[in-house]
Amino acid sequence: MLVNGQHYRTIWIKPDDPRVVQIINQHVLPHRFEIVDLTTVDEVAVAIRDMLVRGAGLIGATAGYGMYIAALNAPTGSREAFLAALEADGKTLKATRPTAINLEWAVARQLDAIRAGDTILEMIEIARQTAIAIADEDADFCRRIGEHGVALIEEISARKGGEPVNILTHCNAGWLAFVDYGTATAPIYAAHDRGIPVHVWVDETRPRNQGAQLTAWELGQHGVPHAVIADNVGGHLMQHGMVDLVITGTDRTTHTGDVANKIGTYLKALAARDNQVPFYVALPSSTFDWVTRDGVKEIPIEERNPDEVTHIQGLYQGEVVQVQLTPQDSPARNYAFDVTPARLVTGLITERGICEANEASILALYPEHRQGAGGRT
Amino acid sequence: MLVNGQHYRTIWIKPDDPRVVQIINQHVLPHRFEIVDLTTVDEVAVAIRDMLVRGAGLIGATAGYGMYIAALNAPTGSREAFLAALEADGKTLKATRPTAINLEWAVARQLDAIRAGDTILEMIEIARQTAIAIADEDADFCRRIGEHGVALIEEISARKGGEPVNILTHCNAGWLAFVDYGTATAPIYAAHDRGIPVHVWVDETRPRNQGAQLTAWELGQHGVPHAVIADNVGGHLMQHGMVDLVITGTDRTTHTGDVANKIGTYLKALAARDNQVPFYVALPSSTFDWVTRDGVKEIPIEERNPDEVTHIQGLYQGEVVQVQLTPQDSPARNYAFDVTPARLVTGLITERGICEANEASILALYPEHRQGAGGRT
Repeated sequence: MLVNGQHYRTIWIKPDDPRVVQIINQHVLPHRFEIVDLTTVDEVAVAIRDMLVRGAGLIGATAGYGMYIAALNAPTGSREAFLAALEADGKTLKATRPTAINLEWAVARQLDAIRAGDTILEMIEIARQTAIAIADEDADFCRRIGEHGVALIEEISARKGGEPVNILTHCNAGWLAFVDYGTATAPIYAAHDRGIPVHVWVDETRPRNQGAQLTAWELGQHGVPHAVIADNVGGHLMQHGMVDLVITGTDRTTHTGDVANKIGTYLKALAARDNQVPFYVALPSSTFDWVTRDGVKEIPIEERNPDEVTHIQGLYQGEVVQVQLTPQDSPARNYAFDVTPARLVTGLITERGICEANEASILALYPEHRQGAGGRT
Repeated sequence: MLVNGQHYRTIWIKPDDPRVVQIINQHVLPHRFEIVDLTTVDEVAVAIRDMLVRGAGLIGATAGYGMYIAALNAPTGSREAFLAALEADGKTLKATRPTAINLEWAVARQLDAIRAGDTILEMIEIARQTAIAIADEDADFCRRIGEHGVALIEEISARKGGEPVNILTHCNAGWLAFVDYGTATAPIYAAHDRGIPVHVWVDETRPRNQGAQLTAWELGQHGVPHAVIADNVGGHLMQHGMVDLVITGTDRTTHTGDVANKIGTYLKALAARDNQVPFYVALPSSTFDWVTRDGVKEIPIEERNPDEVTHIQGLYQGEVVQVQLTPQDSPARNYAFDVTPARLVTGLITERGICEANEASILALYPEHRQGAGGRT
């Protein structure tokens, strides 16, 4: 999407130097737009671990490019030494964020692809092409989510006679979390680019403020009208007809339709139901959990460092600093996700189309996952 | 309640100097505990306007003491000049926060009382006694709310066999918002002081963070176990049986039971209903609106300065500073309150007892407000 009027992805090979991979340092957004060069696996590992890059899709893509950098730097004395170095680097990358399933998947895909090469030069070229393919596929899935989801916005726009369609989103399921387009934002960008007037309510998304820091920034850079609101506000807006549609992303959605997503999503889903506002979740099918049946009971919820609640990052006198919000001796608890039961979800926007949040509807779109159908992906 | 092991109210006449009124500077809590001397009406006006003191009860009490300070400083040449100065000072105080109804009420009560005095010395003494009476009545109403509300906690405690009762609260309806005890916190302090184990989930309450900054501080100082959570967390906790009871305060409650309170209260009420968690609202009867019937449709919701969303105050290198959270060019909107419909409210805890959130039940407790009953208060 656009940054300062120029098209960017979140990760790319430097045009005039193919030995360098470049990323946007999301850690200092929105206060500084900083591009970081990655030339070693250690630099890639730090970028993932310290969350210069974050989001399921982008973490996977970064691991893909990380394995390309690994191939560029591996010893070329023998095929065995080369592959052994790559395997070690793959382990290094996977250890950066152990719960990010896309990380493991991208490293495994690279290793499988690379092993098929005959010469070391060929293996390096395979690593390059595979990294690009992983990124392109991610962008393509998001683009298709946008094409399916934009129909919902078009329909509301027509009903409102062209008045801006008010869309509420939570956290950042934007292009910054993927390679391009995003998931929750993809229908919004598609609508905006087609000239459909939209206005986005951006939940700030405490405690890490991904909405206020990332979603607001990317929407603003792309020219999409928006306003940042405290997470407390959405219910009031829905009560007063100021939200036409909610779209969020998801970290994991059961094949029965329960949606694990950033903490607070469930509260917005409750408000949406109480006010008859449609509540949609956008996801690539890689996010489906084909095993778990009861999301609320079965999905473990990560408890993160309470420092994320007691302290917050912001701009002070030109510097990005952390300030303390709470009394010195007050404990804090930091549950990172919650689960929205399927009964509150109007529909799921996937790369194959829109379905209802229930097993029958999801499996109708993904019949290969029916029990007894061919293997699981 | 206790601060550093000593008993405090939020406002008092300095023991060794009756010409000085003292307050706790809530603007720098929880990072500094600072007592401020007030000796002129201008100082009182600044304290109210800049929110060194805030909360309905405390604003009223401060206006009461402000009129005592006015009496101490008014010209004593003639009764007329004395009263004219007091009336002007009353206008100054009322202008500090024009929507605070307790301000107007306290100033009028003082002027009425003072006018009954014969000599100027007597009028000053009346002002002193009236200021103390206003504060004492506020504290007494809150104490009685605590005595009625503690029964709810005792009952849950008995059912849980003495395991800590988990209570969620939103914003600060604590003793810092009144003269002592608070409203939502009064039953909690009463339970704690009786040795009933409680644990309070403190919503940080963006954007002004009154929970993280004030409620957490006052609970901690009084020794009540608690944890600060992001406003997004309550739904998840309720889904997992980690909240036994919600108690909030209110800025205005219609006689039909609709509750206007800090933005985000409605979302917690929805989650409470979805998980069969009792949701109570604590209030002195002065907070009832005896005219409005439909709170959601009729109560105007104040929109405050968006700077409260885009910036936040915290401690940085020993100083209390403001940091910017959002992109420079992203607009923000700041709706300060929402209305929780009566259907989501389990009950109201008042100084006369607990009633259901509906007209019949409220009027049964306050029969003097029945249509056709004697005058309105």
